[in-house]
Amino acid sequence: MTTRVGILGYGNLGRGVECAVNDAEDMELAAVFTRRDPASLKILSKNAAVVSVNDAASYQDKIDVMILCGGSATDLPKQTPEYAKLFNVVDSFDTHAKIPAHFSNVDASAKTGNKVALISAGWDPGMFSLNRLYANAILPQGNDYTFWGKGVSQGHSDAIRRVKGVKDARQYTCPIDSALEAVRSGSNPELSTRQKHTRLCYVVLEEGADAAAVENEIKTMPNYFSDYDTTVNFISQEELIRDHGGIPHGGFVFRTGITGANKENRHIIEYSLKLDSNPEFTANVLVAYARAVVRLNKEGVSGCKTVFDIAPAYLSPLSGEVLRATML
Amino acid sequence: MTTRVGILGYGNLGRGVECAVNDAEDMELAAVFTRRDPASLKILSKNAAVVSVNDAASYQDKIDVMILCGGSATDLPKQTPEYAKLFNVVDSFDTHAKIPAHFSNVDASAKTGNKVALISAGWDPGMFSLNRLYANAILPQGNDYTFWGKGVSQGHSDAIRRVKGVKDARQYTCPIDSALEAVRSGSNPELSTRQKHTRLCYVVLEEGADAAAVENEIKTMPNYFSDYDTTVNFISQEELIRDHGGIPHGGFVFRTGITGANKENRHIIEYSLKLDSNPEFTANVLVAYARAVVRLNKEGVSGCKTVFDIAPAYLSPLSGEVLRATML
Repeated sequence: MTTRVGILGYGNLGRGVECAVNDAEDMELAAVFTRRDPASLKILSKNAAVVSVNDAASYQDKIDVMILCGGSATDLPKQTPEYAKLFNVVDSFDTHAKIPAHFSNVDASAKTGNKVALISAGWDPGMFSLNRLYANAILPQGNDYTFWGKGVSQGHSDAIRRVKGVKDARQYTCPIDSALEAVRSGSNPELSTRQKHTRLCYVVLEEGADAAAVENEIKTMPNYFSDYDTTVNFISQEELIRDHGGIPHGGFVFRTGITGANKENRHIIEYSLKLDSNPEFTANVLVAYARAVVRLNKEGVSGCKTVFDIAPAYLSPLSGEVLRATML
Repeated sequence: MTTRVGILGYGNLGRGVECAVNDAEDMELAAVFTRRDPASLKILSKNAAVVSVNDAASYQDKIDVMILCGGSATDLPKQTPEYAKLFNVVDSFDTHAKIPAHFSNVDASAKTGNKVALISAGWDPGMFSLNRLYANAILPQGNDYTFWGKGVSQGHSDAIRRVKGVKDARQYTCPIDSALEAVRSGSNPELSTRQKHTRLCYVVLEEGADAAAVENEIKTMPNYFSDYDTTVNFISQEELIRDHGGIPHGGFVFRTGITGANKENRHIIEYSLKLDSNPEFTANVLVAYARAVVRLNKEGVSGCKTVFDIAPAYLSPLSGEVLRATML
């Protein structure tokens, strides 16, 4: 049975989901739902419809799962509860502090609709969260470390763009090698914010802007930059487009723990991602969980779930028998 | 509710399980079952019974899960089906090629007894398998690489000990750094057996043994050594005990994959373990899955399971609410 997928929102993430669905032999893209005029939207897929979001409800019998590709700030807190009444849904809600409230809203809706809604899929939250959970369950006595990068932070890039005199900007979050090595050595270092990451900024100035003032405003910006060692490089718009057009990201999750009658043995678990495209990798995670969500709902499950609640085999198109024979 | 645990077999793995159970606040060790004379067995725990394996059946109401700590060659193929009729069980069966047959035998028994039996927990099979599955589900187009070590291989150490003139031996499997770096670079190298690992041997000779003949016999041994670059170092028994008494291990699981409309973006997922004690880490995995098995059985589940079938949240003593708030 082919899983029929809907995509709501056609930005970087939505386009990534489209590619991932087209790559999956057990899935097909039924429709892309958009707030724009559907006639104005060109999508890659030839056989999928482009539909106004206002007509989504009429697709209840035509799609098995809706992948919600909006943003966490304003779209998903509204969309996920709304669509979980109508469809099995998957989202990538990534405002960590607001996950419990989002879970609770979505859970009520999904139960009303007898649907499964999986929230906060992606890599952090998502694969990094899974690795934190597994590693903590296995090594209950230990320390956790998460590092991000090297990668583009959209939030920090946007913050720089709001500075007066800045025309465009790209910000990279960079883990500090010596901190990674200290964690890998098992020495359980206590690391301050400044000791874990640096921030590297590429800034295009507006004509006549005061470079020194811009640099100072960036470096002293509270929350975003003041707690970090920040480097500001001024470049041309052409250079920004040519050298910094990608959206790479990644990071590291460690747990270091001890075992034994006298706690004499040390263990280090490390998980890392090096991603050329943050939205495309996130999209691939969403699509794997879309497969799981449809299966669970067919088994009669409903309500809000997270990656913690899904048995890994549900993510794979392969049977349990094949998985055991080839991957165990 | 405290989970009452039984341990069957009190070697390195059984002792590791004992430590892990004693560290878990939601578990208590009820009894260690042994084929030896129970009176002869000293265990670390003060409040646990030492019981003959012949009396195990009488403990059906006294323990919630039996962790089977025997070997994969002869113990577990017999023990796991036998005890899965009486108890929820967890084993570390690690003969990859025989997992499907073991699964089938254990599944029939566990269903007869209305118990849950989780087989092949540990790190490979186990955590490495999970990482292969997750990474393949997320990046369906890509390549897998698994490296082991640096660590002690008991099988290879035993093979050396069987060579005439060898008194004692310890063999380390070592991943080759340049191969790891080639994989990390995303170049998708094709790697032969010899290009992935080397074998490092520390050998104690019997008095009067012919060192050159022993070295030659080791290096040319089919299956074990002939396909590898092998180094043989002769040392004294004292040096072996002093410098090579531990049982460290570990390794690396990679998946490199591509995404995008033109497959233009590359992603690298890496999971690695660096373990001071192979049996103690394995024991900690078994204990986390023992928690899961008891919970599943209370929900009415029965039959044979693997790590692929268990939702991660079942491994943790924390509630879903706490997990979402702290680890997602």
